[in-house]
Parts: sequence; structure tokens; C-alpha cells
Amino acid sequence: MKVTIPAVKGTRDFYPELMQVRKWLYQKIQSISELYGYQEYEAPFIERIDLYAAKSGEELVKEQAFVFPDRGGDLITLRPELTPSLARMVAQKQTELNYPLRWWSYGPFWRYERPQKGRTRELFQWNIDLIGSNSPASDAELISICAAFFEAVGLTPSQVCIRVNDRGLMESEMRRIEVPPEQKRDVFRLIDRVNKLPEDAWRQYGIQLGLSQSQIGGLLDILHDKMLWQQSPNLVEIFEILEIENYRDWVEFDPRIVRGLDYYTGVVFEGMERTGGRSVLGGGHYDNLVADVGGEPLAGVGFAMGDVMTMIVLESHNLLPNVRPNSDTVLVTIFDKNCQRESIRFSNQLRAAGIRVLCYPEAVKLQKQLRFADKSGVRYVIIMGPEEIAKGQFAIKDLELSTQTMIDKIAAASEIKRILAQES
Amino acid sequence: MKVTIPAVKGTRDFYPELMQVRKWLYQKIQSISELYGYQEYEAPFIERIDLYAAKSGEELVKEQAFVFPDRGGDLITLRPELTPSLARMVAQKQTELNYPLRWWSYGPFWRYERPQKGRTRELFQWNIDLIGSNSPASDAELISICAAFFEAVGLTPSQVCIRVNDRGLMESEMRRIEVPPEQKRDVFRLIDRVNKLPEDAWRQYGIQLGLSQSQIGGLLDILHDKMLWQQSPNLVEIFEILEIENYRDWVEFDPRIVRGLDYYTGVVFEGMERTGGRSVLGGGHYDNLVADVGGEPLAGVGFAMGDVMTMIVLESHNLLPNVRPNSDTVLVTIFDKNCQRESIRFSNQLRAAGIRVLCYPEAVKLQKQLRFADKSGVRYVIIMGPEEIAKGQFAIKDLELSTQTMIDKIAAASEIKRILAQES
Repeated sequence: MKVTIPAVKGTRDFYPELMQVRKWLYQKIQSISELYGYQEYEAPFIERIDLYAAKSGEELVKEQAFVFPDRGGDLITLRPELTPSLARMVAQKQTELNYPLRWWSYGPFWRYERPQKGRTRELFQWNIDLIGSNSPASDAELISICAAFFEAVGLTPSQVCIRVNDRGLMESEMRRIEVPPEQKRDVFRLIDRVNKLPEDAWRQYGIQLGLSQSQIGGLLDILHDKMLWQQSPNLVEIFEILEIENYRDWVEFDPRIVRGLDYYTGVVFEGMERTGGRSVLGGGHYDNLVADVGGEPLAGVGFAMGDVMTMIVLESHNLLPNVRPNSDTVLVTIFDKNCQRESIRFSNQLRAAGIRVLCYPEAVKLQKQLRFADKSGVRYVIIMGPEEIAKGQFAIKDLELSTQTMIDKIAAASEIKRILAQES
Repeated sequence: MKVTIPAVKGTRDFYPELMQVRKWLYQKIQSISELYGYQEYEAPFIERIDLYAAKSGEELVKEQAFVFPDRGGDLITLRPELTPSLARMVAQKQTELNYPLRWWSYGPFWRYERPQKGRTRELFQWNIDLIGSNSPASDAELISICAAFFEAVGLTPSQVCIRVNDRGLMESEMRRIEVPPEQKRDVFRLIDRVNKLPEDAWRQYGIQLGLSQSQIGGLLDILHDKMLWQQSPNLVEIFEILEIENYRDWVEFDPRIVRGLDYYTGVVFEGMERTGGRSVLGGGHYDNLVADVGGEPLAGVGFAMGDVMTMIVLESHNLLPNVRPNSDTVLVTIFDKNCQRESIRFSNQLRAAGIRVLCYPEAVKLQKQLRFADKSGVRYVIIMGPEEIAKGQFAIKDLELSTQTMIDKIAAASEIKRILAQES
């Protein structure tokens, strides 16, 4: 068998079993988001390129986005991230909306990267934001949500950790070691690399950026000072709140977390494995969500989590659900062509009672129908031959135990519901 | 306030209220699909253009799809329809899959059309297929699913109707009036236009296609023969099954329904309004799903339903749900900065019991927090001042009745659950 036309590289086919895993993840995300009172929204999947051009994500768009002209000549982008669309949506109704907004979303994004483990060109992302508040309690809430999600999927604080920092704290530390304001961005970039480069190369990079040996030394001291958070009133309050919520174990101060995007202005955080260091989510506090789309300044805090890396991490900890398709479904077989109508009628009767029913669509050999059921994951199969039909009964066959029981049709729906409920 | 960068024309912003309507529609689709034992799957949202090129949908792709070169030079398409992706996915695992397959999907599609009422450039579509069976019972099942869906969203057989025809029947009728086989496609196109053109123009079009006056007359007779279905054994069996299922009222034979796509080979159907004639879904039986992607011939039946037209039809019949955001959520207020920690602790305690809790993120004036609750749709608000905290109590305020009750914190979760349950 030859399949002549392959899928686009870096995309995924969600066959039913993988789809069930994807939906399981979505449901975890949904239930945590709703528990904290966040409302689901969604933006378009395509946007004009100018929406991204003004942002710090420019690099992302120029180098990593799918961009194409539409037939009218406008440049369209398959969205690589959600924040610019969120900013547009908020700005469009800025005066009508009821703040603080708590919004979440789960949808597709595209990045033109070389496909590799943990990177696909089409991915799904959970985005969640609290907008219109500047309080440390808001920052703490988003960090709690990360921890609550990790807990809900079965991870433990010994497996993953939310590393937290405060860019405001880092800025004041930079002033202390006399980094001039115009070098702030460069130094944040340097900090971002501290775990990615060997120390020599990293020092070299610092010197290239124009830092002195003593500034580099000072910076290294900052990056190793585990108690520095005590000088950030924000972080002190956030850690206190997380303590109250019993989430303190999930969280660690880490002065090396600064996040790439320039629009973060306060607390920043990253959820990652303790060992291995794979990062599954990242976010932070921003002061002006809507600046580039023409709205009034608006502060908030949010994070994004990609499905690909999350699935990899969950899989490596053996936490993906055991998917059992059709475990809640019965198969109604067709005994022969003459009995088909009765099987169809009965199937619909069960459906009217809310039972999920596969009705075999042809009067093929019973053995073939049973093999189909077994391979589908269906455990209970209903058989109605001419004798059963005449007596107003049917046989229910348990494929797991290889037993068979006769049931009166009058009791059918409630009896089948009872059997399926035992099952789950 | 100026929003400088608009959305792409023909896309939609799903603010939380509209998103709730979209999710309501999704849930109806999901529950009907599951009731019939179909499994959810999803294909990538981008595909290589050659996947569409070989298909009868070629026109759709050339004229109406977003197509763009990726950075490697391959032509990529934002998928305009699902069938080619489904064919690819089935062909890739053709020998492993367990037939008959029953798969459904709900996802985004793009069409480069002039935006107008009922047409957007980005839309969602329900696709559902039964693959690997050639029986009339399979065709009937998909038609039942349409009817079950219409019923589930509150439509009645006097408002909508599923018009059904059999292309096999039409082909034998064409042979009867001596239309040569090579003109079959043209004549199907002519039939497709019979309701769209005035009779004169339609006859003219028939003559242009090379039909004689007597053939055109014969064709018109066919198109008005409401009893013609009795000559199609397929349709006879299908209508019998629909009768058994009590769905016969939703269905009508209509010889003018032939569907545009050439890959339909048997029964075809369209779900539409009785008056107004807006069409919400269409589908049919095909003989060879996987022909163009290199698989072995495989028959099936399926349909697609777009969300945009469906929403318009539901709205015009007043059937969209009354969306009440936050009706299942309580707001925990912050009495003052000193009480904030207690409110946060209490919020988390309620969440641990599964209650959806908005915790106000700042110690602003209580009046402002109550206004926020009211505008959010929250009915019950929790207030905990220093006195209440000292006594281990809290006040719950019903914003609708303007009443307030004191409750012991020990009974909090169960009491609040009871109150919210009355609400829904």
C-alpha cells in the first residue's frame, strides 16, 4: 500500500486514541481554569502580520512564522502566539469589559521550526491571563494555577518546579552593579543564556556586550543568590500567598529566569522538570498589554503552556491516561437480514435513554461482528435472534468474561446502564 | 480609543459569551456523535496542496483556498475541507484499522470567499463518516444522525428537512432519457442549478450542454417526480429504517439534490430549512474514499455541517442558548488588606471541594467588588471581615434577592454547593 501524499512535516494526525489523550489534557486545563473562575475565549487562527510587527515577538514572526499574502495582497500570518490577538480583542472593547478579566484559551499555533523532539510546526497552547490588576495576589494566582494543573495531572513537586523571578528586582540589582539603563535588554539576554552556555563562553558574551569583568562577577553573584527574593516585596508577598495555599513546595526562586519577551515587566516564571530541565510553561507580569494596538495601558499576568512538551513530560513520568475507547459503548449485532430492523429499533431505544450504541450496519456473520466489537474495545454485545425477538428478550454477552445473560427488553435501558456503570 | 490593527476580514473573535454558544454547539455535536458510537479524531489544519489537486475539490482549492509556499518551497494549504485529510489518514493505516470506522471531528476550515452573511473565511465544521460499509443501513444511520442533531438543538420537522436523493437512481433515469454517459457530469451540474436559475435560463443552459428539447423535458419530469424514490431499492430501505426510528418526518425525497462533488456515488442528502432554503449540512455515499491518496477502494457515507450557517438558522428560530457566564461561580471578596490572606485561604478550600471561585485580587472598596460580581453574572458573594474571621464564619450575599446569611466555615463547601445547585 502506497500513500502518495504525505502530511506536512511537523504536523500531527490525531487518530481516535491520540485524540482521547488530547481531550484528556484539554479537560484538565478546562477544569483548572474554571475552578479559578476563568472564562474561555478564542481568537482567529490567522492575523495580519502588522499585529505582530510592533511587538517584541517580531523575531518570532520574521524567523519562525508562516506568513503569506492573501489574494488582496495583505500579509497574513498563521498565529505563532496568542498575546497580540488577546491585546487586539481587549483593546477593541476596552471600555466595555469588566475588570479584572480572567480569560483562558486552548487552541492551535504554528511555528516554522525544524521539526524535532518537543517541537512541531503545529501545536496547541493553553493561554491564561488575569488582566486589569497589578497586585502580587494576581501574580500569585497564576502561579497557583500552574501548581494546581501540575497536581491535577499527577505530577509532584519532586518532579516539576515553578521557577520564579522578578524583573523589577533584577533591574534594581543591575543598577546596583552599575549596568547603564540602555544595556538592560542585552543583560537580560545574557542572563537568559547563563544555563545554555559554558561559563567561559558566557563570560565572553558578557564582555562582547560591553560589561566589565567586575560587572560580570557581580552578575554571577546575583544569579547565584538564592535569598535575593527577600529584597523584592512582590516576591515576599507572592511566596506568602503560595504558602497559605499549600503550593510553596512547587515553587522556587531562580534569579536566572528572566523570560525572553521584553513585554514582561514584573514577576516572571517558568514551569519545568526538576531534572532534565524541559520547560513546559512560561509567563509573567506585564504593564501594558494593549500598547501596540492602540488601547489604554493595561497591566496583567499570564502564561502559556504548549501541548507537545507537556505530553512528553507526562509520558516520561508515566502519567498519560490509559485510553479505553468504547468502554462506555455497547454493540447491537444484526442476527440476520430479517432481524436487522428489530436491532435498529432497539439501538434507538437505548440511545433515547442516553446509552452509547454502535449498531452493526450489515447482516454479516455474527463471528465477524463479535471480532469487530472485541477489537473496538466494546465489552458488552447485544444479540437478538428471531427467538429472542419473539419472546421480547435479548442476550447480552460479556466479551471479557465470555458469559451471556438473557434480559427482558422492558428492563433493557436500566439494566444496561447498571452494567456499564460497574464498568467505569 | 483607536484600535490600529484590525482582524483579518471574515474571521471571528470569540469573546467569552460567544465562546459559550460555540461550546454549546460543540457539546450537542459531541453528544450525538458519541450516542451513535462515533470516535473523535482530528487532522492537521494545514496540508500540502497536492492532497487536494487530484480530487474533485480542485476548483475549491484553486479558487477558494488560502495557498502559500512554505520556506522549503512546498505549497501549503489552509484546509478548505476535511475529506482529503481523512482519506490520507485512513490510507496510512488502512490495513490496521477496524472497519466499519465511525469517526467524527469538529475543527476549523478556511475559504477565501467574499465575506457575507453566512460565509466567513474561517469557519468550523462538523464532519462525521461511517467508512467501510456499503449498506443502506449505513446511509440511513448518517441521515438519522442529522435528524437526531436537529432534534437535540430544538428544531422541528416543520422548520427543517433532510432532502435525500440517490445518484444511482438519477444515473439510471438519465440512461432512460438517453443522456450519453460522457454527459453525466454536465447533467448533474444542470440538475444542481434547477433551483438557482429561472426556468428559461435553465433550459438555455441545458441546450448549451448539448441536450435536446425532449431530453430537457424528460429531465424536468424526473425532477418533479416525487415518487421516483420507489424505484431505488436503496432509498426504499433507507426510508423504511427512518420510519422505524421515528425520523421519517424529518426526511423528504428530492430528485433535485445531487451535491456538487463528483465523488458521491450513491445516496446524497442535504439538511436545510423548509422555508428560506438555507442549507446547513450536506453529505452522501461514496465508493472510493482513498482513491487519490494511494489506498485500496473503500466505501462509506458522511456529511459536513458548518457552524456559521447553523448558528444563523438556530438564531432565526430563537434556539441559541441563553448564556449565563459565572452562574456557577462564587466571588470571594477581600474585606481589607489584613483579611486578604484569609479570603485566599478560604477560596482555595472551596476549590478543593470542586466549587468555582473567583477571588478578588485586590483589597479595593467592597462596593467596587460587588459591582464587579454583578456585572460578571455572579449571584453569590462571600464576605469575610475581621469579626467573621474571628468567629469562624462568613456572610454569603445573594445579589439577586439582596439578602445576606451567616454561615459557619465548617459547613461552607456543602452549603455553597447546595445553594449553587438550586441555581442551575
